[in-house]
Amino acid sequence: MSAAARAAAAVDRDRLWQLHMDFAALGATPGGGVNRQALSPEDIAARRHMVAWAGRRGFNVATDDFGNLFVRRAGRDRTAPPVVSGSHLDSQPKGGRFDGAYGVLAACEALAALDDAGIVTERPVEAVAWVNEEGSRFSPGMMGSAIYAGLRRLADTVDVLDPDGVRLGDALAAFLAATPDVSRRPFGLPLAAYVEAHIEQGPRLEAARRTIGIVGGIQGMRWFELSIAGRDAHAGTTPRAARRDAMRAAAEAVTAMAAATDDAGDALRFTVGRFVARPGSPNTVPGRVDFTIDLRHPDDATLDATAARLRTIVTATAGARDCMADMREIFTAAPTLFDATVVGAVRRQAEALGLAHMDIFSGAGHDAMWMARLCPTGMIFVPCAGGLSHNEAESATPEDLAAGTRVLAACLVELAGAA
Amino acid sequence: MSAAARAAAAVDRDRLWQLHMDFAALGATPGGGVNRQALSPEDIAARRHMVAWAGRRGFNVATDDFGNLFVRRAGRDRTAPPVVSGSHLDSQPKGGRFDGAYGVLAACEALAALDDAGIVTERPVEAVAWVNEEGSRFSPGMMGSAIYAGLRRLADTVDVLDPDGVRLGDALAAFLAATPDVSRRPFGLPLAAYVEAHIEQGPRLEAARRTIGIVGGIQGMRWFELSIAGRDAHAGTTPRAARRDAMRAAAEAVTAMAAATDDAGDALRFTVGRFVARPGSPNTVPGRVDFTIDLRHPDDATLDATAARLRTIVTATAGARDCMADMREIFTAAPTLFDATVVGAVRRQAEALGLAHMDIFSGAGHDAMWMARLCPTGMIFVPCAGGLSHNEAESATPEDLAAGTRVLAACLVELAGAA
Repeated sequence: MSAAARAAAAVDRDRLWQLHMDFAALGATPGGGVNRQALSPEDIAARRHMVAWAGRRGFNVATDDFGNLFVRRAGRDRTAPPVVSGSHLDSQPKGGRFDGAYGVLAACEALAALDDAGIVTERPVEAVAWVNEEGSRFSPGMMGSAIYAGLRRLADTVDVLDPDGVRLGDALAAFLAATPDVSRRPFGLPLAAYVEAHIEQGPRLEAARRTIGIVGGIQGMRWFELSIAGRDAHAGTTPRAARRDAMRAAAEAVTAMAAATDDAGDALRFTVGRFVARPGSPNTVPGRVDFTIDLRHPDDATLDATAARLRTIVTATAGARDCMADMREIFTAAPTLFDATVVGAVRRQAEALGLAHMDIFSGAGHDAMWMARLCPTGMIFVPCAGGLSHNEAESATPEDLAAGTRVLAACLVELAGAA
Repeated sequence: MSAAARAAAAVDRDRLWQLHMDFAALGATPGGGVNRQALSPEDIAARRHMVAWAGRRGFNVATDDFGNLFVRRAGRDRTAPPVVSGSHLDSQPKGGRFDGAYGVLAACEALAALDDAGIVTERPVEAVAWVNEEGSRFSPGMMGSAIYAGLRRLADTVDVLDPDGVRLGDALAAFLAATPDVSRRPFGLPLAAYVEAHIEQGPRLEAARRTIGIVGGIQGMRWFELSIAGRDAHAGTTPRAARRDAMRAAAEAVTAMAAATDDAGDALRFTVGRFVARPGSPNTVPGRVDFTIDLRHPDDATLDATAARLRTIVTATAGARDCMADMREIFTAAPTLFDATVVGAVRRQAEALGLAHMDIFSGAGHDAMWMARLCPTGMIFVPCAGGLSHNEAESATPEDLAAGTRVLAACLVELAGAA
């Protein structure tokens, strides 16, 4: 039996589930979910819980100046760059028990399984908890991994305020002070590879009855702000012919743009998430509508072509109602393609374990997106009930969580090398 | 020359314009409009100005317990119910110089013209300023005329608060105290007839190059609140096939409903004035959309049939996106048909004066709507630039204002009877 197979076999389903339930208690909501926003007292409790867990298992713990937390299982070569796995412990305000937490706890369980199986790896293996992935308290998200990877400067984040006016820098100081015994390491230390386990947050694995998603990358994303400007008018006295009705124009534009993104393969993601008609009085024809478009696809050229098409549609639709349309791109993230070696390792180990699997592209952003800029990176998805996420009802089975963790443990051994 | 013709001829265009400019100074805004909300210090100033004007002209003034102000020119029969004309002096927060004020000042100028022409009418003729027509400070509007007509109770309005928390009852006490010398009269004293002059607040007179709108009535109005409920979902991970996208369903519903109200005669008024997608995050597929419909038409049966059709459309459109639609009627006002005698008087006098005129139905509500429940009622519209109203840029010409006032003065003589 290979070291990878022994590591996978040592993964303990019930112990992993219990670890999830222990963390789910930190910020538990009456609705069965978790409210553990970044740098909050609940997030501090989770951090202390992870440090305590590592202490009990005899692993070293380190943190950086943003509070990203690393639990290290030494390798034969103590100076080699580690193979790292993890995700985040912070949640949405009404989040679930698995989004983020699973990736951290699967990595912890994998370290424990390697110990239990008596495996010595060539490289060190680390579990990491990145700080503020969600961005729901301090915007934007994926902040800890971005700072670690050198894509964002710590100094540029400390003055960000949460909705209550609390400075990120102050919340961070309290967060770091809560674990004074943890040693510091600099940002950007080289990693040999990064593998992140996560619930899919979508319905495809469940629908296809597969346990493991072999994640090829993360789809590209564009955000747009759109405005349609017409003229406020009295709802009672203004005939249709005299209206410049921004609301009607916007409804027609959204209808036409959505229809234009109805691709046969259902790969293009078109979402109007925010839409407000102004001035917003029932008896005034709206002179202005503001809305957003979130557009995603694995292929950048498709995003380019679709954005151009949407722009043409909204301009023409607004013009037909004597309105003016404006469409501004406010955010863009190019598609991320994961490393062939890491993706190959996930595929090999899923197959070796005889688990039903499928290739999948991530619809959501993850810390792995930034790690992919730093080192060979991949991800492992497991199903979640109904594809539901960012929701207190988010749910996954102990079996699926354990299966993903077995693949992860085996991958970590493969990537770190059995000594 | 008939008495009606002499009254019309005595209308003084420049004096009428100056009266408008004097009142426009009370609450003048930097943008050239008027902010004279009901029962405000500016509204009190306008009230005192009107009382002073009446005093200078030697007319008696009376008020009721809601502050509706009546300026009386006696008739030969001093006990006969008066013929009354007027409108309101309160404005929108960013209102214009003519909405409401014109109807009051035209009536005042008509009284002055009758005096100047030495006409004795059989019945008394009164100019009235109804309190709180706009409803922008104390909701709802058309309050003074509704209370006078017995359609609303004073006691039910005194606890209404303005946006700053001021009680209507307290503001009303100050309003009444500002003119302590004015005698009180009860609500609901019988009126022989009511004629209200108003700017059109729409573009039809201007477009048709007519000076006088002979108003046949006020179109009926229905207000609806609609909700479309789907399911919040992640914009990145949720394929189209798995979405219950309330935003897309609502855009399609508004598009289809608007198309269904595109009547050939452009008489049906369909307005979606408020539209909000929830939760309103750019990267969340909205699970709920709330919007309003304001539907107006002169004919109640058409409103019934159209409302039923809209309900069918929204239910089907939402259902096709796996969403649920709900449509609730929150307000209804039946169409008002004005009295044939009063409408006939307006037509006769417009024709006698050789003024270009057209039949028109009011798209907006007016105090005349409640007066029509009490006595024979009609209205006279004059053009306003671009149909613009509820706007600081609201504009009308001295010539058109005078023409409408000539028709009004002649109508008042016809309805009150030349002694």
